[in-house]
Amino acid sequence: MKICRRETFNAAHRLFRSEWSDEKNREVFGKCSHPNYHGHNYVVEVFVDGPIDPITGFVIDLKVLKTLIQEEIIERFDHRNLNLDCKEFEGINPTTENIAVVIWQLLRKKIDAKFGLEVHVAETEKNKVIFGGE
Amino acid sequence: MKICRRETFNAAHRLFRSEWSDEKNREVFGKCSHPNYHGHNYVVEVFVDGPIDPITGFVIDLKVLKTLIQEEIIERFDHRNLNLDCKEFEGINPTTENIAVVIWQLLRKKIDAKFGLEVHVAETEKNKVIFGGE
Amino acid sequence: MKICRRETFNAAHRLFRSEWSDEKNREVFGKCSHPNYHGHNYVVEVFVDGPIDPITGFVIDLKVLKTLIQEEIIERFDHRNLNLDCKEFEGINPTTENIAVVIWQLLRKKIDAKFGLEVHVAETEKNKVIFGGE
Amino acid sequence: MKICRRETFNAAHRLFRSEWSDEKNREVFGKCSHPNYHGHNYVVEVFVDGPIDPITGFVIDLKVLKTLIQEEIIERFDHRNLNLDCKEFEGINPTTENIAVVIWQLLRKKIDAKFGLEVHVAETEKNKVIFGGE
Amino acid sequence: MKICRRETFNAAHRLFRSEWSDEKNREVFGKCSHPNYHGHNYVVEVFVDGPIDPITGFVIDLKVLKTLIQEEIIERFDHRNLNLDCKEFEGINPTTENIAVVIWQLLRKKIDAKFGLEVHVAETEKNKVIFGGE
Amino acid sequence: MKICRRETFNAAHRLFRSEWSDEKNREVFGKCSHPNYHGHNYVVEVFVDGPIDPITGFVIDLKVLKTLIQEEIIERFDHRNLNLDCKEFEGINPTTENIAVVIWQLLRKKIDAKFGLEVHVAETEKNKVIFGGE
Repeated sequence: MKICRRETFNAAHRLFRSEWSDEKNREVFGKCSHPNYHGHNYVVEVFVDGPIDPITGFVIDLKVLKTLIQEEIIERFDHRNLNLDCKEFEGINPTTENIAVVIWQLLRKKIDAKFGLEVHVAETEKNKVIFGGE
Repeated sequence: MKICRRETFNAAHRLFRSEWSDEKNREVFGKCSHPNYHGHNYVVEVFVDGPIDPITGFVIDLKVLKTLIQEEIIERFDHRNLNLDCKEFEGINPTTENIAVVIWQLLRKKIDAKFGLEVHVAETEKNKVIFGGE
Repeated sequence: MKICRRETFNAAHRLFRSEWSDEKNREVFGKCSHPNYHGHNYVVEVFVDGPIDPITGFVIDLKVLKTLIQEEIIERFDHRNLNLDCKEFEGINPTTENIAVVIWQLLRKKIDAKFGLEVHVAETEKNKVIFGGE
Repeated sequence: MKICRRETFNAAHRLFRSEWSDEKNREVFGKCSHPNYHGHNYVVEVFVDGPIDPITGFVIDLKVLKTLIQEEIIERFDHRNLNLDCKEFEGINPTTENIAVVIWQLLRKKIDAKFGLEVHVAETEKNKVIFGGE
Repeated sequence: MKICRRETFNAAHRLFRSEWSDEKNREVFGKCSHPNYHGHNYVVEVFVDGPIDPITGFVIDLKVLKTLIQEEIIERFDHRNLNLDCKEFEGINPTTENIAVVIWQLLRKKIDAKFGLEVHVAETEKNKVIFGGE
Repeated sequence: MKICRRETFNAAHRLFRSEWSDEKNREVFGKCSHPNYHGHNYVVEVFVDGPIDPITGFVIDLKVLKTLIQEEIIERFDHRNLNLDCKEFEGINPTTENIAVVIWQLLRKKIDAKFGLEVHVAETEKNKVIFGGE
C-alpha cells in the first residue's frame, strides 16, 4: 500500500556549470541558463510505502507526513533561489532530477526505514521526474 | 500493458474507533473524527494489467470495466455514509487506505484472475493511495 | 481588475425539506436526500474587484484575503456537517447555490464595500455556481 | 462571442519597493520580497471578443493569436527575471495584477480595436487575476 | 446566480469551405483542413442564470439540466463526424465558435426564457470559446 | 530515476475489423465503430529511465526528448485520421492500447537502449493506458 501527499513550492533557479563559459552553458542548458534566473511552481508528490496499521487504518498519519514535508521541504525551498540560498544545491545543478534526489535524501532521514519512499517532482505541466532511491 | 478507468463518487465518512474516548479519537484522527461526519469527492482509478487481445486490440473492453466499476463500486458507495450505510466498512475505519482495499477486494472477485489489478483512490487533491493486493 | 483566491473544504450535507415526506424528498432531490448524508470536496473561488493600489501593486493583499477565507469560511465549514453543525444553514437547504450565498454574505461583511465581490463554488468536477450578490 | 487562448511562461520575480527598508518590504510583501528572487509558472489566458466572421467561422484566427502571444509575451518574459531583465517592469512592482496590465497593454497595441480584450494571469493554482482594461 | 454543468463529447471534424481550392483551405485553416478529418474531446460548460427557488434552493434542477445536455447535445454529437453526420452543421464550418452557437441554439429552445444561457466550449486545453447569445 | 515529458495530439479514428459485418463491429466496439470516424485529444506521456549524468544533472536532455516526440509522434499523428492516413496502423485497430504500442516502438528505435522507456496514452479524462515494452 502506497500513500501520497502533494505539496507545492515556488522557487527561482538557473542551470549552469560555473567552470563553463556562457556560450557552453547556453548551448547545453539553453534558456534555462539565463544568468538572472527564472522560476517555477514546483509540485512535489511524496509516496510512502508500507503496511496498513490495523488500529488506525493508516499507513502513516498524513498530518505527520504533511508536517514533515512542510518543515523539511517547503520551508527550506519555498520563495527561495535554489542556486543562491540553498546549501543543499552547493555544487549541484538544480535540475528537476537533482531536486528530486535532494528532497528524497532530506525525507529519507526523517521517515522510518521500514517505509519505502518515492518522490515525484514536476517543474511544469509538461516535465516531471520520479526518484525512488539508488 | 495496463489500462485505467477513472470514476468518482461522493460519500460521507468519519474516522474513529468506537472503543476509544472522544478525546483519544480527536487526538489520533483530528478533525476527521468529527461526530457528525464530513465528506469527499472520491476519485477511483482502476488499473487492469494483461496482454492485448490481438483480435480487438483491447486488454479488456472498457465498456465492461466501466459497467463493473459502476455496479460494484459507484452504486454501492455514491451518496452514502460509509460508516452507517455500507456493511463493507463494518468494523473497518474508512480511511482512504481501507477504501482502496475494499474496492480492490470487490473488483478482484469480478475480474478474471489472469489480469493484474491495482486501485488508486484520491480523497482530496492532495491525498491519494495506491493498492495492488497483498 | 479582479483578483481571485481559491480554497477548498470538505463537508457532509443532505438536501431535503423537513416538512416533506421521504418520498417527496427523494422525488425532488434524488440521492442527494439520502438520510445519512453524503459529502463533497467543495472548491471556493473568491473574486475581489477593485483598482490596483499604486504603491503595492495589489488590489488587495492576497495574504489578507487568504486569512479571511480561512477564518470565515474554511474553519467554519471544513470537516463539518452543513445540516447539523452549521447555524448558517438552519432552515436553509445546503444546495451549492445556497452555500455560495452564505459564503458571499459572510465575506461581504468583512471586505470593504469599495470592493466588488463574487463567489464561485464547485461541488464536483461537473457542477458549480457563481454568485455576485443580489 | 469570446475566444480564449492559453499559454504559459516561467519567470523569476521579487516584490519590493526600492525606497523602502528591507523590514518594511518584508512586512508588506512577506516572503515575496526575498532578495534573491523566487519564481512561478505563469498561466496566461487571452480572451478576444468580437463577432464571428461568416466566411471562416472564426472570431480571430487562433494561429494568429497564438503567434501574437508567443512573440509579444512568451518570448519577452519566458525564462526571464521580471525585475532585472524586463524594461516593461521598470519602476513597476511585478505583482500578478501589474503583470496582467502589462500583458494587456502589449496585446492591445497589436489587436484590432474592434475586438474586446481581457487577460487572465494565474501565478499559482490558488491565485489569479483578471484585467479587461481601464 | 449562475449554475454550470460540465459535459464532454468526442467528435471528428474538418475546417474547410467547399467552394475553395485545397490550397486556399490549407492556407486559411492550416492542418485543421486536412481532408480525412481529425478530432477532439470537446468540453461543454452550460451556464444557466436565474433566481434561486426558495423551496428547493435550486436555480434549476441539475439532474434536469444534465439530462437535457445529454439528450440534446451529447447523444447528437458524441462519437460523430460533425461535417458528415450532423445536419446542424450543413453549410456551417464546425469551428469551436460555430459549435458553441449551435449548442446554444439547441439548448435555448429547451430552457425556459426566464433563464439566461451561456455556453463555453473547449476544443483543447489551450483553446476555448464563450457564447451568450446575439 | 525516471523523467517524463507530456505532449498532446488531436486525431480521428474508428475501431472496427474490416472482415466483420457492421453489426458485429457495433456489437463489439459500440459507438467507437461509427463509420465516419470520431476523434480525441490524445495525451502522451513518455517516461525515460536511467542514471543522472553527473555533469549536466540530466537523465536525458528534455529539449532532445521534446524534439524527438515532436518529430516522431506529433508530426506523424497530429490532425490525422489514424485509420486512413497512418501506415503504422495498417491492419492494426487504433485502440489506445495499440496507439501506445506504436508510439513505444517508434521511440524505442530512437532512444539509446541504455534507457528504459514507458509510454502512457490517455484517450479521454477517464481512459488511459500504460505500456513499457513486451
